[in-house]
Amino acid sequence: MKTPFFALLIVFLSVPVARGATSPISEETGACLKCHRSTDPGIVADWERSRMARVTPRVARSMIVQKRRVSFEQVPQKLARVGVGCAECHTLNPEKHQDTFEHNGFQIHVVVTPEDCATCHPVEVGQYGKNLMSHAYGNLKNNSVYHGLVNTVTGIQSFEDTKMILGDPDEETLADSCFYCHGTVVEVKGMETRETTKGKMSFPVLSGWPNQGVGRINPDGSKGSCAACHTRHQFSIEMARKPSTCSECHKGPDVPAYNVYKVSKHGNIYSAMGKSKTWNFKAVPWTVGKDFAAPTCATCHVSLVVSEKRQVIAERTHQMNDRISWRILGLIYAHAHPKSPDTTIIRNKAGLPLPTELTGEPVAKYLIDAKEQEKRRKAMNRVCLSCHSRGWVDGQFARFENTIKTTNEMTLTATNILLSAWEKGAARGLAQKDSIFNEAIEKKWVEQWLFYANSTRYASAMIGADYGAFANGRWYMSKNIQEMMDWLGFKLKEMR
Amino acid sequence: MKTPFFALLIVFLSVPVARGATSPISEETGACLKCHRSTDPGIVADWERSRMARVTPRVARSMIVQKRRVSFEQVPQKLARVGVGCAECHTLNPEKHQDTFEHNGFQIHVVVTPEDCATCHPVEVGQYGKNLMSHAYGNLKNNSVYHGLVNTVTGIQSFEDTKMILGDPDEETLADSCFYCHGTVVEVKGMETRETTKGKMSFPVLSGWPNQGVGRINPDGSKGSCAACHTRHQFSIEMARKPSTCSECHKGPDVPAYNVYKVSKHGNIYSAMGKSKTWNFKAVPWTVGKDFAAPTCATCHVSLVVSEKRQVIAERTHQMNDRISWRILGLIYAHAHPKSPDTTIIRNKAGLPLPTELTGEPVAKYLIDAKEQEKRRKAMNRVCLSCHSRGWVDGQFARFENTIKTTNEMTLTATNILLSAWEKGAARGLAQKDSIFNEAIEKKWVEQWLFYANSTRYASAMIGADYGAFANGRWYMSKNIQEMMDWLGFKLKEMR
Amino acid sequence: MKTPFFALLIVFLSVPVARGATSPISEETGACLKCHRSTDPGIVADWERSRMARVTPRVARSMIVQKRRVSFEQVPQKLARVGVGCAECHTLNPEKHQDTFEHNGFQIHVVVTPEDCATCHPVEVGQYGKNLMSHAYGNLKNNSVYHGLVNTVTGIQSFEDTKMILGDPDEETLADSCFYCHGTVVEVKGMETRETTKGKMSFPVLSGWPNQGVGRINPDGSKGSCAACHTRHQFSIEMARKPSTCSECHKGPDVPAYNVYKVSKHGNIYSAMGKSKTWNFKAVPWTVGKDFAAPTCATCHVSLVVSEKRQVIAERTHQMNDRISWRILGLIYAHAHPKSPDTTIIRNKAGLPLPTELTGEPVAKYLIDAKEQEKRRKAMNRVCLSCHSRGWVDGQFARFENTIKTTNEMTLTATNILLSAWEKGAARGLAQKDSIFNEAIEKKWVEQWLFYANSTRYASAMIGADYGAFANGRWYMSKNIQEMMDWLGFKLKEMR
Repeated sequence: MKTPFFALLIVFLSVPVARGATSPISEETGACLKCHRSTDPGIVADWERSRMARVTPRVARSMIVQKRRVSFEQVPQKLARVGVGCAECHTLNPEKHQDTFEHNGFQIHVVVTPEDCATCHPVEVGQYGKNLMSHAYGNLKNNSVYHGLVNTVTGIQSFEDTKMILGDPDEETLADSCFYCHGTVVEVKGMETRETTKGKMSFPVLSGWPNQGVGRINPDGSKGSCAACHTRHQFSIEMARKPSTCSECHKGPDVPAYNVYKVSKHGNIYSAMGKSKTWNFKAVPWTVGKDFAAPTCATCHVSLVVSEKRQVIAERTHQMNDRISWRILGLIYAHAHPKSPDTTIIRNKAGLPLPTELTGEPVAKYLIDAKEQEKRRKAMNRVCLSCHSRGWVDGQFARFENTIKTTNEMTLTATNILLSAWEKGAARGLAQKDSIFNEAIEKKWVEQWLFYANSTRYASAMIGADYGAFANGRWYMSKNIQEMMDWLGFKLKEMR
Repeated sequence: MKTPFFALLIVFLSVPVARGATSPISEETGACLKCHRSTDPGIVADWERSRMARVTPRVARSMIVQKRRVSFEQVPQKLARVGVGCAECHTLNPEKHQDTFEHNGFQIHVVVTPEDCATCHPVEVGQYGKNLMSHAYGNLKNNSVYHGLVNTVTGIQSFEDTKMILGDPDEETLADSCFYCHGTVVEVKGMETRETTKGKMSFPVLSGWPNQGVGRINPDGSKGSCAACHTRHQFSIEMARKPSTCSECHKGPDVPAYNVYKVSKHGNIYSAMGKSKTWNFKAVPWTVGKDFAAPTCATCHVSLVVSEKRQVIAERTHQMNDRISWRILGLIYAHAHPKSPDTTIIRNKAGLPLPTELTGEPVAKYLIDAKEQEKRRKAMNRVCLSCHSRGWVDGQFARFENTIKTTNEMTLTATNILLSAWEKGAARGLAQKDSIFNEAIEKKWVEQWLFYANSTRYASAMIGADYGAFANGRWYMSKNIQEMMDWLGFKLKEMR
Repeated sequence: MKTPFFALLIVFLSVPVARGATSPISEETGACLKCHRSTDPGIVADWERSRMARVTPRVARSMIVQKRRVSFEQVPQKLARVGVGCAECHTLNPEKHQDTFEHNGFQIHVVVTPEDCATCHPVEVGQYGKNLMSHAYGNLKNNSVYHGLVNTVTGIQSFEDTKMILGDPDEETLADSCFYCHGTVVEVKGMETRETTKGKMSFPVLSGWPNQGVGRINPDGSKGSCAACHTRHQFSIEMARKPSTCSECHKGPDVPAYNVYKVSKHGNIYSAMGKSKTWNFKAVPWTVGKDFAAPTCATCHVSLVVSEKRQVIAERTHQMNDRISWRILGLIYAHAHPKSPDTTIIRNKAGLPLPTELTGEPVAKYLIDAKEQEKRRKAMNRVCLSCHSRGWVDGQFARFENTIKTTNEMTLTATNILLSAWEKGAARGLAQKDSIFNEAIEKKWVEQWLFYANSTRYASAMIGADYGAFANGRWYMSKNIQEMMDWLGFKLKEMR
């Protein structure tokens, strides 16, 4: 079954498959479609456009390795020769799924999880488990410091007798804000009966639903949602490779990756030229120069990238951090990337679950060392070097690492003002066992690192200059420090 | 004239009509084009690409109902069999148009109005009259509270003897800011003679011109401008259906609908996949799954949406609010949608033209009741249910309505601080008959609801999470309250 | 060599040239490609898509004038008949290039400069020398006032003994922020030996590298980088004409041109319709109505625009300011455009290098006069008049000039508060020979003009209404003044 068969296959698969020209579908999926084609026309039409609907696992597996989009060694016999349809995913692993219920004679579940997807994509799901994102729920919820940040942001404040009272946030609010991206806990709260076009039927009622957060805790105990990036029900590699996908969670002032990308030279090339026919967002592997003329987020962080001679420039990874030396967002100081994706295990000298001390020293034990950083930087640099000379790349990275250093220094300055405020009693902090996020000066301090230092570092990493200058960058770091100083002066005066 | 004729028609109309292959144009339009093709090449070329130029009203009317883009029963005989060109619109209803003037033997007017468009599109114009947008001018200008907001924002402030003096805004400034979107009053101020390529000619001089605001007061007394969304001179349904059209007025911090859409899953699908050939923004009716894989603004709020089986999922509406239960923007508290598009008639207990009391209680008499809200929610839900299960949709709406409640609570807290400031004399408010928008703490209070509560609600409605968290969302609601508290403390100290 | 030859040529050139069907390349470029095709696959693939690779200078020159993209009278014989490849640019003018080095038998340089590009495009490079942008480095670095702004924004602040100490910024930080857009000084700092796939080789080490800023100081002494807009290595006119190119430097709060454009009617038409096949971003000349239905940045400011009858509507210009009457950004007050692109020569009455006094009066000697302003406005108006009537255009410009006046007034008010703060000792200013940018109230003053007045003017110029209202517009001008007043009150109280 070697070359001639492959040659044919390649010809067959490189022809765009017309809509409708699908693989055989299973009897079970046929049964689903009988009703759902009319009750959920949008879902079915979307799935019909998907590659899943048209290519059986067996055919997908038969491609040469560089072209494969599946990573299983074996799939159950009954899945191998049919297109991947409703039943194939929504009935997998029924015994593990707390949300399995009887539906017209089938044991189905609503929430398809990474563990379900691992049937055909085990390597990707395995890598994703090492990605910080898969732990995004616990890393926020079970970190006592961050839990406090969540509460002060989302709790309802009320003004009583000239005092402010902070209540605990409700579950809906949490699901609507932080945990939309970080992921909710999806559990079965009970069953409910609904009137449908086919009469009364029972369905599970789920907590934290809907949600497609990257760290979602699923009813089968697994973590994450592949649909966060591979949007249902096309699950398209094209969409996952486009930067708008990442913008869903990476566009706010706390994580302005997309904003910076858009004004970078790379983002400009993508915006101006990326719709041209010469760009191909579906090709596997993804060939630099031929398929694209500038990187998107996926190029540098995820995709299998090769040269026209099929030399591998970057391996596909859903771990993502294996080309990332530094963690530049979300924490008080930028620091070497944590070793474990579960960051709740970290403790600094003060006993806080933070990767640095409050004054910036890294907690080395939990972070990758300089050698590992160098290895990751080299892996990233290979991507850069496809289009840039060594001198260019070295200059860029020297500048970026300098920016990590200087933004940390500017954060330390803000921290020192805050420490002074705490010491002088102008605000209540750790020593008073008060929240470190609830007072005005504390909120200014948070903005120093969560918004401004962060934006400046992103701007440096991807070269989107104004995000390091006037667009939430150095201008604001510098102004914020002055305002913290003035606040402290006014407050001390008020206290006198 | 039944099936065979239609079959031909459909074939004819589904073939993209080549540029130039237009309907017969009227003699009058021919006369216009003789000069204007060379004096206004951009306008003429744009119009030539329009469907108006190529399809006569008679042919447009002959389509089956679901495919029709016109809603007249009859048009004047002379309009029926020619393409809709310059003369057809710019000479309509001359007696009603204060801006009619003699131009080379024709009685023409510059400003084409909804009443003119109603010749062929009476249903749409009728619906639009029930849309808040058609009253956008008066609802801002003739509401004493909002008029005050406009003045403090647009009036020139000067600093004299350590005091601030606020002047009234000039007309050009108003037209350049608030009334660009809300609409200006376009009136004839006189005539002026201009040198043209054809010698001296007279033209009317218009106040408030140019303007295409949604609530423009026209020289024929009608309200609005169809060109706000159906941009001249292609008047394209495609453009009106794309979200960038809405972004012209719905992108600022006061109404971040477009910003939220862009980072939502829907917006991402549109950005990543919407340029693909499988998407069709011109089809009437608009078929879910076939013509598009994710909604734009128009899908949920305006368009005639059907399933592949031609079942109507949503009727076309230019009223727009018939699927909207809540009004989430622009007012101090979110509240049930007002009954009348003219909101200047509303009076709360305090006698102010506001749909709630200052402390949030709705003024029920002027607002739709729970039953009407439920009806509208159901109409909207039908659109959602094309692609989402009932459990998903119910979860989403429960979350959204919880967010309406909590954002109102956070606004009440800010209001209570403001009331305290007024009471203690730290600021001058209603009791002192002073503007409630001119002092620093009042401006902070405005931002609490006009920016932050608002953004949080949009983020919840369309799921653009960070706009409910750090991007003008809950972070800012919470921080703003602390800053209002501190301001009050500092001010009271200063007064002592 | 007249008509028949041209007819053939036009046919030939209007057919999209397939990838690979290149002009003959020189032996030297062939030698480059031998290695670099595999070491830099992205660069080579990008260049292969460029017009430069496919059209020889001789053929480019042979087009009729309106279609020409080159402006030389003669090029060296050896360049005329080969495609413009690696060697053609990277070995030009070796004696002028401080960065020339020996590389496999060739004298090459890394940094291709406007002076190199002038070999084929002398007119454009000449015009660009009169553009403020070409002086962007010196205008920032060598202006004592602006130099101070840079230092307070980019210097590291530290908090010691309740005092703030400001250090000087380092070179990497400057290159990472302000000078990314303004341009760095690229000089050879020495040579370094690197291990390559071909063994050890020597390369120059450059300061300020990488950089593509518009005012870059090059190793051959020339100013600017054509690649800022004509991105390497396609150098595409299509990319330069698309607004995302300008967004790289014109999107922050200090210069929100792109943001405003995006929400303008023009920007909406571009976003919604600009990907349609009827738009042509490559055509030279660029025909209004036929090639595009709404202007991009380039249409109004740079490109050769004609009507379908080949009448010239706007001449191509890389000077850009020849259609700009006012300078609306970056300075304390909007003012008539400066005469010289080198603004360091300007001195106001107070001896400061500013085009106005601190209270707004223009320093007329260095600025264009009313007659020149009128001439430039007329040149710009010709573009507007392709699609708008005279009444529309006059109304628009009257509004814009009114906005220049009112925003200047609001800046004067902020300045008067600042002067009062200086006078009362609440802040230290010019009289105390202190920086005018380092204290909180000074930073608020900067935001009044650099962000808010600026945004309001852009919104007026391009009609992106909310940027003149709530999105960094009049709302913030008005609020900022109140906050400056309150700050002054609190500070004076603190001092007592």
